[in-house]
Order: sequence, then C-alpha cells, then structure tokens
Amino acid sequence: MTVRLSTAEAYGRLFDDYDTWLFDCDGVLWRGDHLIEGVVEVLDLLRRRNKKIVFVTNNATKSRKSYKSKFDQLGVQAHVDEIYGSAYAAAVYISSVIKLPKHKKVYVIGMSGLEEELNEEGILHLGGTDSADNTLEPFDLSQFELDPDVGAVVAGLDTSINYTKLSKAFQYLTRNPGCHFIATNEDSTYPTSAGLLPGAGAIGAPLRYALGRDPISTGKPSSTMLDCVRAKVHFDPRRTIMVGDRLNTDILFGQQGGLATLLVLTGITSEEEISGPEPSPIVPDFVTQSLGDLRV
Amino acid sequence: MTVRLSTAEAYGRLFDDYDTWLFDCDGVLWRGDHLIEGVVEVLDLLRRRNKKIVFVTNNATKSRKSYKSKFDQLGVQAHVDEIYGSAYAAAVYISSVIKLPKHKKVYVIGMSGLEEELNEEGILHLGGTDSADNTLEPFDLSQFELDPDVGAVVAGLDTSINYTKLSKAFQYLTRNPGCHFIATNEDSTYPTSAGLLPGAGAIGAPLRYALGRDPISTGKPSSTMLDCVRAKVHFDPRRTIMVGDRLNTDILFGQQGGLATLLVLTGITSEEEISGPEPSPIVPDFVTQSLGDLRV
Repeated sequence: MTVRLSTAEAYGRLFDDYDTWLFDCDGVLWRGDHLIEGVVEVLDLLRRRNKKIVFVTNNATKSRKSYKSKFDQLGVQAHVDEIYGSAYAAAVYISSVIKLPKHKKVYVIGMSGLEEELNEEGILHLGGTDSADNTLEPFDLSQFELDPDVGAVVAGLDTSINYTKLSKAFQYLTRNPGCHFIATNEDSTYPTSAGLLPGAGAIGAPLRYALGRDPISTGKPSSTMLDCVRAKVHFDPRRTIMVGDRLNTDILFGQQGGLATLLVLTGITSEEEISGPEPSPIVPDFVTQSLGDLRV
Repeated sequence: MTVRLSTAEAYGRLFDDYDTWLFDCDGVLWRGDHLIEGVVEVLDLLRRRNKKIVFVTNNATKSRKSYKSKFDQLGVQAHVDEIYGSAYAAAVYISSVIKLPKHKKVYVIGMSGLEEELNEEGILHLGGTDSADNTLEPFDLSQFELDPDVGAVVAGLDTSINYTKLSKAFQYLTRNPGCHFIATNEDSTYPTSAGLLPGAGAIGAPLRYALGRDPISTGKPSSTMLDCVRAKVHFDPRRTIMVGDRLNTDILFGQQGGLATLLVLTGITSEEEISGPEPSPIVPDFVTQSLGDLRV
C-alpha cells in the first residue's frame, strides 16, 4: 500500500527515517531545462541534516563530468562523485565485472559521454563518434574487416544511429565468440522539453531483434547500477530511499535493491497509473506530487 | 511428418499434385548474386506443364519492376505480374484493406522500391528517400511540424535509417490519433552474398520498442501477402505448394494459408534445424536439398 504524503509530520518522518537519499534527475529535479520548484531548498535541507545524497541517472549521452554542468546551469549543488550515470555503470561493469582484458576493445553505439566514461576506466573502444562510422553511405559487408579484439558491444542512446553502426555491431555479436552485449539502459523513451523521443532501449532494439538475444543492462532498474553506487558509498538499505518519477525504472530499481521508494508526479508517471482503474503492479512506498513538497 | 524427397518418382508426384507453385527467391532461386544450379530448368519444366508460377518475396527495398531486373540479370524467366513483394503488399494493404482516404499520407521508413509501390497505388507519402530526412544532423523536436494528414507509418528495410526518421515516425504514431503502424515484413536478418545483416524487422524494432506496440506485417508469414496473391491469381489451396528456405517465414506462410510446403536447404535453414536434437516446431510437408533436385 502506498502512503500518500501531505502533512508536515509525514514529510518530517522521512527526514528522520532515511540517511541516504538516491535521486533520479529528469522528472524529479528538473523537467528538460526547467528546475522544479523547491528542489534546491529540499536538497539544502537534506545536506544541512548530513544526509548522503546520490544522483542516479540513466542518461548515457553525458559523462558524470558533463552531467554536472547541468546541475551548475540550473543552480543545483552537486559533486561529480555524487553522480552515477548508466554510461559510468557500463564502463565499471566492463572493467570490474566482466573484467575485459586490457588489450580487448568495445564497439560503441553511443555518444561522447559514453566514450569518456570508457576512457576513464582505461577501456579501448571503437565506433561511437568515429566519423568513419557516422555515415549514411551504404555499408559494404564484403569490405568490412572484423577486428578480432572486439570483446563487447555497448549500446546507449545514440542520435547518430545508422545502418553501418548496427551492421558492424551485429557482425561482432555474431562472429566474435563470446562477445558481450551490453545496454547502458533500456528506457523506451527519452524526455526532452518539447516531448518524448525514442530512448536508449529503442536504439539497442534492432540488435536485440536481429540477434534474438537480450543485452545486459547497466541502467536502472538493473542491480548493476546499485552495485556501482555500493562500491563507492556505504549505505544501509533499510535507511535508504530512492526518489523517482518512473515506476518501471526508478521505483523498481529501489525495490529490487531493498530500498524505500518515493514516487513524484512531476515526470513520466501520472496519477492515473497509480490510482486509476488499472494501476501498475509496481507500487511505491510513498507518493507526493513534487519533491518541492518536502520544504515544510 | 516431413517427407524427404530423393527419387524421380517422388519428384514426379509433386508435378502431378500441384498446379500452382509459389516460390521464395533468395535462398531458393539464388543466393545473393549466384543462381542455384538447375533452377532455370525446373522453372522451364513447370511452365511446359502449364503450372502457375508465383514469386513471393519479403524484399521491400525493390519494387516488383526493379526486382524483375534481378531475374533478368540471372537469366531466370519471370513476368512482373508473377512477382509479389512485401512493399507491394504493404501498398495494397493501405489502399484496399485500411482504405486510407486519398488525401491522407504515409510516413515512410524505407527505400525507393517501397515508394514506387505506394506511387503505383496512388498513395501520398513523405519521409523515405527525401533528403531532408536522410541526415545525421540532430533532430530538434521543437522545430518539427506534425503533418495532421499522416494516417500511417510504414517501415521496411532502410539502410539509411537514422534518428530523424525514427523520431518523426514516433511522433506520428503517438500524436496522430488512429495512425496505423505497418511493417513490410519482420525478417530479423537480411542475406547478402557476404553474409547476414540486420533485416526489416530490426529496422522497425526501435518503434516497436518505444511504442510498446507491434506493427501489422504485410510480408510472409502474414496472410496479407497471400490475400494480395489471391486478389490477382486464382488457385486451389489444396493443389498449391509453397517452396522456401525459411521455416518461420516461408513454411509458416504456406501452412497458415492451407498450402503444401517444400523446404529447400540452399538458404537459411540447416539440416540441423529439422533433424537435429531440437528440431523446429514448424514442420514442412516436404524437404529436398535444392530446387535443382526437381530436374529429373
């Protein structure tokens, strides 16, 4: 049963009960380029009470460093080491979980943020923003030289997606034995201030369909993302709360990690989806209209 | 139970039992640019015995007219009106089944062959080969003007697939009420003489994933394709045989239409898939190594 928060007392209890606060960003702190009212004050309140703050985003087009500039631009205080993105999680997964040998390479469907995170982890990569692969010229398979050192394909949101990238990734995944297939996240859509566009899950979908095989996802709701946070931040799950706007990513992510969950209605999820005639099977612990409501 | 053909008598019985012969092309008549041995003789034999011949292809990158040149180039006799392609089936589906009003338009993810078939049916269309949509420049949703007359999106194999096309198609499918979602075919892969590449099903997969909605497919194994043939050719299903190399398209297509089915092993399906330890649940009536075997 979801507790609907509305009184100062109820909000106050959240501050007492949880020491570590995980936040989704888009739809919770801001919408596109617009800060949500009261967010800065609520984060200040948490910092003054010495709460640990962690920002967990599926956005894989930006590295943590460049994502930080979004916080700066909107006047939200944040440290780079409080930010966990799905591109970073993918890089950590490749270096620390798969332990891809150092001479091996990753074929990238994705943008510069993903490449930066791979660089930070010392992972060799090809594809991505390489101009040779950012083309609408016909792909000639007979001229393609398969690099035997490619041991993984990682797919994230890539607004330069094209048939050459899809074809090369498909060759590596079908012809290089044991080649790993990783998705930064599986969001079906991507929110912009003008509306929704196809998300990272849609960019990886052609490979998934052609291969008949699902990737390992490193974004929410995957536990890989929480493993990344856990490697750097000590927290007690029973005293940790995940705040998000998407049931099937944020709230599910919190629940699978044994955390409390707070849904806000400033993003993707509508009131209808939780209290309408066909409510979602994913039920958050708490719901409030906006993170700004906690300014009491 | 599949009957494995090998004797002159068994092949002869096929000629006696079936008056209408439906053929898949790639993997049956040719592989990439190489004619399969004996095919010309077998087709001549059928024509001399006054059999009706129909070529049924999921290839949607070529119109029937331009597909005919492939026959000419390889020296295989064929008439344009014997050829049924999935692009043609999509156009007929739009004009005759949906009956899209004449002032309405179709947004195309696909190549010139699909556009030619839409033109032949007098269907207005946009996207496709339009240079404005064949770009890797960022797509700016705030600058996009939704055309309220777009009543359908059709997706086929498009080797110029990009984020602008996917984003525009996604807008039409989510914002234009009742907008139809059609796929020329759902082949996961596309055979070339150098190997497999992602197929039409993979090109439509991002939309399918972003929308959480499946398209209506007009290619094999969909019955829409057989409805197209039936509209032009009179045949008795009990005396008709479908010859193909793919179990989940050709053979399933024949079975769902109540036709006899003959699998050849010169294309996608291997011996392993029909007689190995985990055989496919799709069981053809007959199997032979190659269409050329029928030259007896």
